Amino acid sequence: MINIKEKIQLLRAEMSLQKVSAYIVTGTDPHQSEYVADHWNIRKWLSGFTGSAGQLVVTLDFAGLWTDSRYFLQGEQELEGTGIHLMKQKIQYVPEYLQWVNKNLEEGSHIMFDGDTLSALQNEEYSSYFFKFNIFYSDTIINKIWEHRTSIPQSKAFTLKEQFVGDSATEKINRIKNWLKEESLDYLLLTALDDIAWVTNLRGTDVHFNPVNVSYLLVGETQSVLFMDEEKIDDSVSGYLDLHDIAIKSYSQTHVHLALFSDGKRIGIDPNQCNFNIAKILSINGIHISNPVINWKGCKNDIEIQNTRAAMVSDGVALSKALYWLESTLETRSVSEYELGTILTKYRAEDKHYLHDSFGSIVGYNGNGAIIHYSAKEHNCAFIKPKGILLIDSGGQYLTGTTDITRTISFGQIEEEVKVNFTLVLKGMIALSKVVFPQGISGVQLDTLARQYLWSQGLNYPHGTGHGVGYCLNVHEGPQGFGGLNNVKAKVPFEAGMITSNEPGFYVNDRYGIRIENLILTKKHDNFDKFLEFETLTLFPIDTNLIIKSLLSKDEITWMNEYHQLVYSKLSSNLDEKLSLWLRDKCKAI
Amino acid sequence: MINIKEKIQLLRAEMSLQKVSAYIVTGTDPHQSEYVADHWNIRKWLSGFTGSAGQLVVTLDFAGLWTDSRYFLQGEQELEGTGIHLMKQKIQYVPEYLQWVNKNLEEGSHIMFDGDTLSALQNEEYSSYFFKFNIFYSDTIINKIWEHRTSIPQSKAFTLKEQFVGDSATEKINRIKNWLKEESLDYLLLTALDDIAWVTNLRGTDVHFNPVNVSYLLVGETQSVLFMDEEKIDDSVSGYLDLHDIAIKSYSQTHVHLALFSDGKRIGIDPNQCNFNIAKILSINGIHISNPVINWKGCKNDIEIQNTRAAMVSDGVALSKALYWLESTLETRSVSEYELGTILTKYRAEDKHYLHDSFGSIVGYNGNGAIIHYSAKEHNCAFIKPKGILLIDSGGQYLTGTTDITRTISFGQIEEEVKVNFTLVLKGMIALSKVVFPQGISGVQLDTLARQYLWSQGLNYPHGTGHGVGYCLNVHEGPQGFGGLNNVKAKVPFEAGMITSNEPGFYVNDRYGIRIENLILTKKHDNFDKFLEFETLTLFPIDTNLIIKSLLSKDEITWMNEYHQLVYSKLSSNLDEKLSLWLRDKCKAI
Repeated sequence: MINIKEKIQLLRAEMSLQKVSAYIVTGTDPHQSEYVADHWNIRKWLSGFTGSAGQLVVTLDFAGLWTDSRYFLQGEQELEGTGIHLMKQKIQYVPEYLQWVNKNLEEGSHIMFDGDTLSALQNEEYSSYFFKFNIFYSDTIINKIWEHRTSIPQSKAFTLKEQFVGDSATEKINRIKNWLKEESLDYLLLTALDDIAWVTNLRGTDVHFNPVNVSYLLVGETQSVLFMDEEKIDDSVSGYLDLHDIAIKSYSQTHVHLALFSDGKRIGIDPNQCNFNIAKILSINGIHISNPVINWKGCKNDIEIQNTRAAMVSDGVALSKALYWLESTLETRSVSEYELGTILTKYRAEDKHYLHDSFGSIVGYNGNGAIIHYSAKEHNCAFIKPKGILLIDSGGQYLTGTTDITRTISFGQIEEEVKVNFTLVLKGMIALSKVVFPQGISGVQLDTLARQYLWSQGLNYPHGTGHGVGYCLNVHEGPQGFGGLNNVKAKVPFEAGMITSNEPGFYVNDRYGIRIENLILTKKHDNFDKFLEFETLTLFPIDTNLIIKSLLSKDEITWMNEYHQLVYSKLSSNLDEKLSLWLRDKCKAI
Repeated sequence: MINIKEKIQLLRAEMSLQKVSAYIVTGTDPHQSEYVADHWNIRKWLSGFTGSAGQLVVTLDFAGLWTDSRYFLQGEQELEGTGIHLMKQKIQYVPEYLQWVNKNLEEGSHIMFDGDTLSALQNEEYSSYFFKFNIFYSDTIINKIWEHRTSIPQSKAFTLKEQFVGDSATEKINRIKNWLKEESLDYLLLTALDDIAWVTNLRGTDVHFNPVNVSYLLVGETQSVLFMDEEKIDDSVSGYLDLHDIAIKSYSQTHVHLALFSDGKRIGIDPNQCNFNIAKILSINGIHISNPVINWKGCKNDIEIQNTRAAMVSDGVALSKALYWLESTLETRSVSEYELGTILTKYRAEDKHYLHDSFGSIVGYNGNGAIIHYSAKEHNCAFIKPKGILLIDSGGQYLTGTTDITRTISFGQIEEEVKVNFTLVLKGMIALSKVVFPQGISGVQLDTLARQYLWSQGLNYPHGTGHGVGYCLNVHEGPQGFGGLNNVKAKVPFEAGMITSNEPGFYVNDRYGIRIENLILTKKHDNFDKFLEFETLTLFPIDTNLIIKSLLSKDEITWMNEYHQLVYSKLSSNLDEKLSLWLRDKCKAI
C-alpha cells in the first residue's frame, strides 16, 4: 500500500506538471460537512490525520496540517514520520494557514483549492486575502493520484415518522414557501445535509455517525427537487416523496440542472454553506441569504423534546449496563479502552430506536483522557485497571433523538489534586446548568460561568464549553454554542427549544483528563417573563468519589443531590434489581 | 428667548430653502467627543435635551430624538411640549434612527449631516446604507438660525508634570515615531482630544468635566504640529512645546494646512475618530489605521497607578466629609439633591490636586435614583429627608487621576425588597471584583458575573456594567468596558494597567435606584502566569444597613469585611477624630 510520504510525492509531481505552488485541502465536502464521507476525506487520505478539524497545505517543499488544541496530541502521533508538520493553531476557527501561505509563497504563485469544498463566502474572503496569487480550482488533481478512490456513498434513505419529528415535510416546506414570499425569492437551495434531512424528514447512513443523505434540495413555490441518487431511494421513500410533492433528480446532475434551470430566477443560497462551484453556476441568480432552516432546526418542537427525554432514559440505561459491566469485569481482568467502546455501542443498540453512535466514542484511561478527541485503536490502546481515572465521551443516534454524554469515573484511591480539579469542573458545569438569563443572551456571555472556578486557580481548558445538538441528526449542530469571541456560534442568542452540550473539562498531558458533559434544553422561564433557563436532559450519575464536598456551596450540593434523585427516579424502573441497586448507590446523596 | 418649537420652525424654513428633507444631528463635535463644548452642542440647543447620548432627526413634518434607556425618563421630561418625539432605542450604541430615516423618507430625498461631526467610517457606512438618498454635508445651516452661537472655547492650556504622568511628551512622541516606522507611515494625525492630551501631557478646561484642549495633533518623524489657538498658549506652555519639538499652528488653520501639506505623504488616521471633512481633505493620503494611542493611554503606567491610589484617598476623604455633613444636617433640616452636589464638589476641591468634577454629580433621592443619568436642577429637585434611599454618583478630576464612584445609602427603615435587590447588586459587584481570568478575555465575557444574581430573580439593569476611565482625563475612556455583544468596548481584551468602572445597578421607576460603583485596576495575577485579576481602587464604605447578610456567601462576607478594613485603614489617618469614628462605624464588620 502506498504510504503518506509517497502520496505527497505523487501530489507534488502533479502540482509541478500543473505549475501549482500550493495545494490546499480545507477538509470538508461539497456540503460543508464537519464529518465527511471517505470519498471526500482527502485530508485523511493524504496525511493520515483522522481528526475532524484541520487544513492541509502542501507546497513543493513543505507540507503542514493546521489544527486546534483539541487535536495537538493526536496530530503529533498521527503525523509522526510522514514529513507533514503539525501546525498548532492558537485559536480555534481562525484560519492561520492562510497567513502562512500568504507569507511563504512568492507573489504570482498559483495556489489550488477544490471548488467543491470551499464555501462561496470563503472563496470571497480567500480571493481578496490572496490578491497577490492566482487561485485555481480543481477537483481532479486528487483523482489523478488517488487510485481506487472511495466512491460517493449510496446508503438507503429512510423516513422519520411524524411521531418522531412532530412536523411533516409538507409543513416544513410550507414554512420555507412563506419565507420565500417574505424575501421575494423564487427558490431556496439547501446544501447542508442536515438541513435537507430536517426539511424532508429523511435520514440515511451516508456519513459516519451523521444520519444524513448526500443530496441537495431546491424548494420553490410550486416545486421542490431533491438531488439524490436513485439507488438510495426505494419504493416506499419514492411514494413518500411523491406525497410531499418532492421531485427527484440524480445527485450527479445537480450542476447541470442548476445551470439550465436558474436563468432568470432568484435562488436563495447561504454563502456560508453553498460551495463555490455551485455559487458560480448560479451566478447572479444565487442571492445570498441567511438560511432560516438553521434556526428552525435548532429550536426543537414539543414532540422532539418529549422524544429526546425518552432517548435520554435509553442512553442512561445503556451507560448503566456498560459501567456495571466494566466494574464487574475489572474484578477479574483488565479491559481495553477499545473494548469498552464496543460495549457502550452494544448496550445502546439494545434500544429499539437506536440507529448507530452519534460519534466515535472517546474512552481515555489516565493520560489518554487528556487527548481531547482521543480514539482508542483496537490493537493499540491502553488497558483499564481498577486504579486511576477514565474519561468516557459517547453518544447515540436514536429515532427519538441524539445523545452526547461525558463522564469521568474513578477507580480506587485518587490523588487530592485530581479531586479538586474535578470539583472545580463540576462547579462550572452546575453554574451553567442553573443560570437564569434574559432573552438575547448568547453563549459567549455564559461561557465564563463554566470556567470561573478553574480560572480562580489559574486553570482553564482549551476548547469551547458546548455545541448545539441535532434531533436524530448531527451531534454538532448550529446555530448556538458556548465559547469565546472567536466562536461565531457563541454569538447567537439562545432560544427556547435549543439543545446544547454543557461540557467543561480540565486536562493534564500524559496524566489525566476530566470532562463532565450533559445536554441542556433552553426553555422559557416558568416565572419570569422574557427570561430563559436550561433544563438538564442527560441522565447519568456523576462520580461522587471525585467530589470534594467542602468545595461545593449549599446550592451546589442541593443541585447535585436533586440531579441524582432525578437520574435514579427516571432510570431505575428500566433496570433489573441488581442494576437498580448499583445505580442507587451511585446516586446516593453527598 | 427663542424656544425649542421656534428653533425647529426656523430650521425647517432653512431646510425648505435648501431643499433638504431631513437634517440629522449626530450629537458630537469635530473630535468625536462624548461630552462636547457648547459651541458644538447643536442637539442640546435645538432640542433642550441635555443627556450625553442621542441623535436628533428633523424632517419637514417630524422631529425625533433617539436615545438609549439610560435617558428615557430624562428625555421624556426634557422633551415635553417641544413637539420632538422621544424615540426609545432598544439597544445602546445601535443607530436605530438610520432605519427610521431609511423607511420614512422618499427615494431621492436630500438629507443633511454636519461633515465635521461624522467620522470617516460613519460616513462610509451611512453612504452605503442611504444609497437611495442624496447626502449633503453642511456646517452652516445651524449658524443661520443660531444667533449668538457660543464660540469655540479658548481656555488656557497647562502642562502636567512628569511626577503626575510618568512619561514625558517626548517619550510618547518617540513611541509614535517607532510605530510610524513599523507601519511605513510619515505622520499620525490625532483628532481625539484625550489622545492629544495624553501625548502632549497638556490639559485644559475647554470641555465641561473633560480636562482637554480643542486641538489636532500631527506627529511625524521630524516634526510634530499642534493645531491649537494661540490665545490658549501662554509663555510657559509655549516654552514647554518648544522643548518637546512641537510646533504650533492655529486651530482654524487645520483644514488649510492639511490640504497644502498632505500631498504625497502617508498620514495615518483612525476612521472611527477622524471626521469626514478632514478625511476628505486628506483624500488618498489619509491611510486608515487602528490608532495605537488608544491602547497606550488605556494602560496606565506605574506612576499614574500610584498617583491614582492617592487620588482615591482624597476622594474617599471628600465623600466622608460630605456624607457626615449630610447626616448631621438632616438632623435639623432637609437637604436638596442639588445642594448635596455642591457640597461634594466643595469637599473634593479641598484637595490641592483637584481640578474640577469629572462629570455632573448624580444625586437621586428615592424615585430620582431610577433616572440613570439624573441631574438635579437648583430650583427644581427633591429634598432629601432622613427616610428612604439616595443614589450618589460623582467623581473628580485630580492632577493625580480621575475618580468615579457611586454609593447608594439608606436613611431609617428600608423595605425588605430594596435590601434584597441591593444585596443582589452587591453580589454581582463583588463577583466582578474577585474574578481571576486568563489573558485575552474581554468585558462581554465578564459582564455576566455582575448580572447573574439579579438574573436569577428575573431582574436586570439597562446599561453596561462598566467603562474605561482616564488618568486626569475623560471619565469615559476606551478601549475596554463591561457590556453586551453590541458594545464594541466590551470586545476588547483586558490588559494590565487598565482602569475600569464596576457598576451594576437596579432601578424601579418612580420608586428607587440602586447602583454600587468602584473603579478596578487590571493587574497581572501574582501567582498564575498569563492570568489577570482586578484590584479595587475606590475607597469608601458600602452601606451595610442595606445588606442582607444571609444572602451573602462566606467568601462574599470576607470580601466585604476586608474591603471595609482597607477603606478604614487608608482613610482614617486623613480624617479628624470625629470623622474617623464615624468612618469606623460605617466600616464595621458584618
